[in-house]
Amino acid sequence: MIKVAIFGFGTVGSGVAEVLDVNRAEIMKRTGMDIEVKYILDLRDFPGHKFESKVVHDVDIILNDPEVAICCETMGGKTFAYDYTKRALAAGKSVCSSNKELVEAYGPELIELAKAHECSYLFEASEGGGIPIIRNINQCLTADKIESIMGILNGTTNYMLTKMDREGADYAEVLKEAQDMGYAEQNPAADVEGHDAGRKIAILASLACGKTVPYQSLYVEGITCITSMDFKYAAKLGMSIKLIGQCRIEGEQVFAMVSPCLIKNTHPLYMVNDVFNGVLVHGNMLGDALFYGAGAGKLPTASAVCADVIALAGSLGEHIPCKWAQEQAILAPHEAQKHTFFVRMKQTGRDEAVSLFGATEYIELEGQSEECAFVTAEMTEQDFAQRYAKLSGAISRIRMA
Amino acid sequence: MIKVAIFGFGTVGSGVAEVLDVNRAEIMKRTGMDIEVKYILDLRDFPGHKFESKVVHDVDIILNDPEVAICCETMGGKTFAYDYTKRALAAGKSVCSSNKELVEAYGPELIELAKAHECSYLFEASEGGGIPIIRNINQCLTADKIESIMGILNGTTNYMLTKMDREGADYAEVLKEAQDMGYAEQNPAADVEGHDAGRKIAILASLACGKTVPYQSLYVEGITCITSMDFKYAAKLGMSIKLIGQCRIEGEQVFAMVSPCLIKNTHPLYMVNDVFNGVLVHGNMLGDALFYGAGAGKLPTASAVCADVIALAGSLGEHIPCKWAQEQAILAPHEAQKHTFFVRMKQTGRDEAVSLFGATEYIELEGQSEECAFVTAEMTEQDFAQRYAKLSGAISRIRMA
Repeated sequence: MIKVAIFGFGTVGSGVAEVLDVNRAEIMKRTGMDIEVKYILDLRDFPGHKFESKVVHDVDIILNDPEVAICCETMGGKTFAYDYTKRALAAGKSVCSSNKELVEAYGPELIELAKAHECSYLFEASEGGGIPIIRNINQCLTADKIESIMGILNGTTNYMLTKMDREGADYAEVLKEAQDMGYAEQNPAADVEGHDAGRKIAILASLACGKTVPYQSLYVEGITCITSMDFKYAAKLGMSIKLIGQCRIEGEQVFAMVSPCLIKNTHPLYMVNDVFNGVLVHGNMLGDALFYGAGAGKLPTASAVCADVIALAGSLGEHIPCKWAQEQAILAPHEAQKHTFFVRMKQTGRDEAVSLFGATEYIELEGQSEECAFVTAEMTEQDFAQRYAKLSGAISRIRMA
Repeated sequence: MIKVAIFGFGTVGSGVAEVLDVNRAEIMKRTGMDIEVKYILDLRDFPGHKFESKVVHDVDIILNDPEVAICCETMGGKTFAYDYTKRALAAGKSVCSSNKELVEAYGPELIELAKAHECSYLFEASEGGGIPIIRNINQCLTADKIESIMGILNGTTNYMLTKMDREGADYAEVLKEAQDMGYAEQNPAADVEGHDAGRKIAILASLACGKTVPYQSLYVEGITCITSMDFKYAAKLGMSIKLIGQCRIEGEQVFAMVSPCLIKNTHPLYMVNDVFNGVLVHGNMLGDALFYGAGAGKLPTASAVCADVIALAGSLGEHIPCKWAQEQAILAPHEAQKHTFFVRMKQTGRDEAVSLFGATEYIELEGQSEECAFVTAEMTEQDFAQRYAKLSGAISRIRMA
């Protein structure tokens, strides 16, 4: 029997306990392994709870128990989670984590530490809950050179944008609704300003190139400026608007960023709606492959943690390798990234649009006689920004995927 | 260095040689393993070909060479492929296969044989070329009880149906075009009559339940009766028509079948178009996860074979387990499967439709005054068949997904 400890009995941690409990027989049947939760580390007590007897308050009880082979870090944060993870790995206990902040900040260091102690550090659940994207990159698409990744990586903003698209609702309105339903935090910045998606694409880009793509160096733009009017234009173009994290590897250079993008209704990511996430990976031999699943939620996220637990249980005493070096990747400057841009402007700016962008076709909305829009040719961010700054009638711009 | 032999230098086999050659440095970088093709087994010579010197005509050269650790069976067929695979496994060489016929017919026996000789039998490429669905079921979704699988599993028919949908073209027309473009065989039966999709869902259902779901016992209906008129109705319903393989596991019973289905434009499989395949897996904790990729093609299929080669190379001397017993699964009778049905009939049959199906709402197409259609409530296949047989004005019926 393989004994597991859970660090943190919040939403994900309690989900992990539930999945391992409910599916214990099924896991045994499918993998031949009997896995049991021995300890749950939390500051709180849980009187009357089914797992009350497993709760401990002192991490040393877990770290000093040689029976515990695997720890699930579902605490979040970077202080205690970092400390406990390092101590568990140093004690030769494998760790799996749902904590994207920790993974993004210390992933390669923790992988190194695991390797030195002949155990492993896995973090499937740090990306979208229900998509086994990390295992797919590391273990399934191994014969390919991964050339690009493009994904809808944040469930909260995707829920909001889907609602804006379907109902013509405004940003403030859907944000409030998302908060009321518990999909968005009271302080929604991490989601709506794109930081969560930024951390996720940083992790994926790092795995794709094998070096570290630091989240802090990425250009990240959120959805706070997207309006219901933007969606009207999108509909007219047969498109929707999604928050897209993308990276592209060209030789030694990595291009990576997060921004809202207009996306055509024939694009595989177009149908990724509500709280679902989707990641499109392009391999040099495989071509496009898409992975789609629940972007968040207690049980899908817990299922991902538990799949890690099972992988760890099947590899006790050895290190599951993960190519992610601490060395920084060479990040292409944001200014050099190329896109086509959708630009809204006042009708009075048409002459300028012609001279600056060579715009010839304009999109107009019924009942909106004062403004129009056009789509640029592909150009660098720098080139675009310089011309756009001179467009006096400019209202807003969105990149096109 | 790890030495590989390829059985059969056709489309897939030559793709495997190419992927291992072109991506050799990348594979080394990502996995730390140097993998080289030592032999290519084929009856033909390939004078002047880059790999000419590797070609051998006698399988014993490969089987007797202790340096060869892995064989890729990309021959197809069940006679020589079966014999060579068994002999390779018995010699302790791991085998990976793109041969769905062989896998469907002898999968569990070959897995058993591999286990007995401390090597492995993998077959990722026997399903849709570019989707790592088998590895996902066996290694990524391990914490879940898989409750159902639903997939577009055949690229040829999906290409044809997509064309019929987009262009209003007729079946015979798109079949000819698919044949001219090399997507469909001159004898297209295996694709258009659903047998290829049937073998694939049989393999997926077997992996999901751990026992053998024999393809011969499945109800399989192809796309030969689908017309451009059906697509007009589908469009009116906001739907398309796809060839769907599906299985559902309820307790000890497995429901599995292949048939064309109407599918709503909000369904994740709706956007799986052209030669792409998509598989939707439902886990009891994870919920829905979708895997999407190229359904066929030399390089995507070869990429899947090579991912198997890499997995085998990383596990030399041990058996990679796969839960697929020779014991037959309990297959629910086709008659007990439940669906809603879309029924086309002559306008004159309305009274019968009311009394047989309680039909109240009818779908009519402009310019088609003689016929109409309706959608039934959910009912068993048997129940539907009995009533439908009595509907004298009946034209055709399609299941709804």
